[in-house]
Amino acid sequence: MSEPHATLAEEAAKLDAADELRAKRAEFVLDDSDSDSDSDSDNSDNNDNDNNDSDADDAGDGTVYLDGNSLGALPAAVPARLADVIGREWGRLRIRSWEESGWWTAPERIGDRIGRLVGAAPGQVVVGDSTSVNVFKAVVGAVRIAQARAAGGEEPRDGTRAESQEGTRAEPRDEILVDESTFPTDGYIAESAARMTGCTLRPVPAPDIAAAVGPRTAVALVNHVDYRTGRLHDLPGTTAAVHAAGALVVWDLCHSAGALPVGLDAHGVDLAVGCTYKYLNGGPGSPAYLYVARAHQPRFDSPLPGWNSHADPFGMAPAYAPADGARRGRVGTPDILSMLALEAALEVWDGVSPDAVRAKSLALTDFFLRCVEAYVPAGRVESVTPAAHQERGSQVALRCADAGEVMAELIRRGVVGDFRRPDILRFGFTPLYTGFADVERAARVLAAVLAEAPGEVA
Amino acid sequence: MSEPHATLAEEAAKLDAADELRAKRAEFVLDDSDSDSDSDSDNSDNNDNDNNDSDADDAGDGTVYLDGNSLGALPAAVPARLADVIGREWGRLRIRSWEESGWWTAPERIGDRIGRLVGAAPGQVVVGDSTSVNVFKAVVGAVRIAQARAAGGEEPRDGTRAESQEGTRAEPRDEILVDESTFPTDGYIAESAARMTGCTLRPVPAPDIAAAVGPRTAVALVNHVDYRTGRLHDLPGTTAAVHAAGALVVWDLCHSAGALPVGLDAHGVDLAVGCTYKYLNGGPGSPAYLYVARAHQPRFDSPLPGWNSHADPFGMAPAYAPADGARRGRVGTPDILSMLALEAALEVWDGVSPDAVRAKSLALTDFFLRCVEAYVPAGRVESVTPAAHQERGSQVALRCADAGEVMAELIRRGVVGDFRRPDILRFGFTPLYTGFADVERAARVLAAVLAEAPGEVA
Repeated sequence: MSEPHATLAEEAAKLDAADELRAKRAEFVLDDSDSDSDSDSDNSDNNDNDNNDSDADDAGDGTVYLDGNSLGALPAAVPARLADVIGREWGRLRIRSWEESGWWTAPERIGDRIGRLVGAAPGQVVVGDSTSVNVFKAVVGAVRIAQARAAGGEEPRDGTRAESQEGTRAEPRDEILVDESTFPTDGYIAESAARMTGCTLRPVPAPDIAAAVGPRTAVALVNHVDYRTGRLHDLPGTTAAVHAAGALVVWDLCHSAGALPVGLDAHGVDLAVGCTYKYLNGGPGSPAYLYVARAHQPRFDSPLPGWNSHADPFGMAPAYAPADGARRGRVGTPDILSMLALEAALEVWDGVSPDAVRAKSLALTDFFLRCVEAYVPAGRVESVTPAAHQERGSQVALRCADAGEVMAELIRRGVVGDFRRPDILRFGFTPLYTGFADVERAARVLAAVLAEAPGEVA
Repeated sequence: MSEPHATLAEEAAKLDAADELRAKRAEFVLDDSDSDSDSDSDNSDNNDNDNNDSDADDAGDGTVYLDGNSLGALPAAVPARLADVIGREWGRLRIRSWEESGWWTAPERIGDRIGRLVGAAPGQVVVGDSTSVNVFKAVVGAVRIAQARAAGGEEPRDGTRAESQEGTRAEPRDEILVDESTFPTDGYIAESAARMTGCTLRPVPAPDIAAAVGPRTAVALVNHVDYRTGRLHDLPGTTAAVHAAGALVVWDLCHSAGALPVGLDAHGVDLAVGCTYKYLNGGPGSPAYLYVARAHQPRFDSPLPGWNSHADPFGMAPAYAPADGARRGRVGTPDILSMLALEAALEVWDGVSPDAVRAKSLALTDFFLRCVEAYVPAGRVESVTPAAHQERGSQVALRCADAGEVMAELIRRGVVGDFRRPDILRFGFTPLYTGFADVERAARVLAAVLAEAPGEVA
């Protein structure tokens, strides 16, 4: 197998040399052998580092980090920014920082930054709470919009008439669809949302949701990219089908935002949620976000109407009156440290084209699949990630019966992916900092591990 | 007025000299004139600083920070700890930190630390989400317990029988009581909880809740200390009265935890919530906590059953099965940066007796009221904080018609409290870092500001 090794390693070097995003790698703290000593430096060092990337990035003696789809690597700008937030903004200005340091408006300000990455115009995304909490807000909020619309005989956004206008009495909108292979928390929270709004919950495979949506469907909750298989679902087509049935759709963007263009506004998505600690590199448990399309905002009726979402929060009025716009999606006091770390982390996206990210992501996963095919004995692993580009996110999932042991050994050898029970090896490819040499090395080490522990696919 | 000034200033110096908690002040970053240059130093410097506290703490040329009831000052241990969390745990260990750095178990570990401060034995407090989100979990969870108990004819915790056992058919438990002067978010969220559980919401003055609770009451939600007036409500008596009526009580501890002993277990409280950024000094928007008494945990049925609360979260099972214990109160991925800042902040409580904190708190507020009486022209301000110790939290609220302008001027002169519309000057006293000289100076500056802008009470 020495021939393909050399060939693919050479190809990796060429791909890295031609990569228009490769300078971005220096904006992250990674285990490259040339950057260990200056990892705490800030962005001002980037230009210097760019000049010698070729010396060491390909050396392959650090860690290959392919778990950015679980926890993104540390952007180099974060440590200094957080030190300032803690030492000066909290430590010196203290309470004044809510205004003077822009803490109070951070959820909307950072939301707009994320909006640019998922195709949402300003004023529709707000940051805060966990993904799970945002799923609850989004699904309950969507059910209420669908039910209010059905009850009022109003027209849905796309101009089709609600059933009640067709001459027969409309059925109640009391069904929530959820994609069957959803990340579990979405299903658990959707079940709670269904229970608390008098709806039923029906799991349906994501590709079948367009066909399953019916006159009783209020909302469909769908993951844009499947967390296990890395399969990219059809956001434009599913959204259109859900709308045609008079229902709303909530997209979970956890595994797509920052890895590929989403186009929320362009495709008329109703609501969406996502986390920020995967491809957006916001840090462990960094706050999630909620998108409510502008057209729905006046009727977005949050099940968590905390004081931060009040029209006049410092009026401290006993009666609730919702704020206009994205702020209506806020709940309580935002977690400023985690939130401002996220804001600093998002600076790496300045000047980055989502299309360039998508192109590199597909090139990385294509190359990984080729390397695996070249290096790993046939039949030892099976890719459960779709081969077709239009159905692939930014990860590759390989199935093998001994996946748990294999991943543990891979991590010991410096190739970090993760294991999803019972038999999935997950490798995430973050276009901003993953190089083709990383990919080749990961496949090479994987092949070595698999060769030493012969096993079978599932 | 020079005589009382000199007398009270001397008394302040004596009180500070005799204060058993005064060494704790050096564990915070404050604007003392002798510590500006070494505020970023870590705890190892504390012993040195203690030796010259008397030189400068009383000099009064820094800021007097009396807004710790809104945002606690920065504990000196936090900057170095967060730098390590970001640089090493996130930057180097990355995904491994969920296990190796104890991230995954942080919500329960830190919860137990808070539990010690509010009188809860280990295993009953979990940290995460905002106070508002925790109010939602607690109120909905409590309603469900009350309703299940009523439906099943089970005995409440205190051994009294539910109504259904008395020979007549029990009325439904479908009423939520909330204290009328609650911090607004509790009322807004309680209203949502009522709407989503088929209950009605009835606001009642907190002191009247014991009398208002009835056979249809499921839950009473009460603030332990009123955020405006600083009034301390009767937790033992109200809890006992609510229990006698077969209902549950949820206490909001935002303005009491860290300022006075709470005694959750001792008084048989059912559920409680609180924030951590006031007297617990966790930092802006640091995560809140939820207490579910051990006896209720098996029936705590969260409306936000996120994957972190699953019995086997990494099993990624499609069906929800709740974890045992405090973890059942978790929802999504915890915000690790804010949470570990809180953990570091809580180290200042090591070796601190809650009774000593309470004694100093009362001495501080007593002394402030005396100084205000001595310095401020009679009738210019009116205290709305109860004079009786058993009804006072750790703040003093003064009413005057021009409170907004007065507070702005106070802040310009280095005395930081806050303003609550329409006419309240709020001063919070944090026993761990507020000294008696601070108190005397604050009253002195307040008197000067008021003398320059003659006005009337409300």
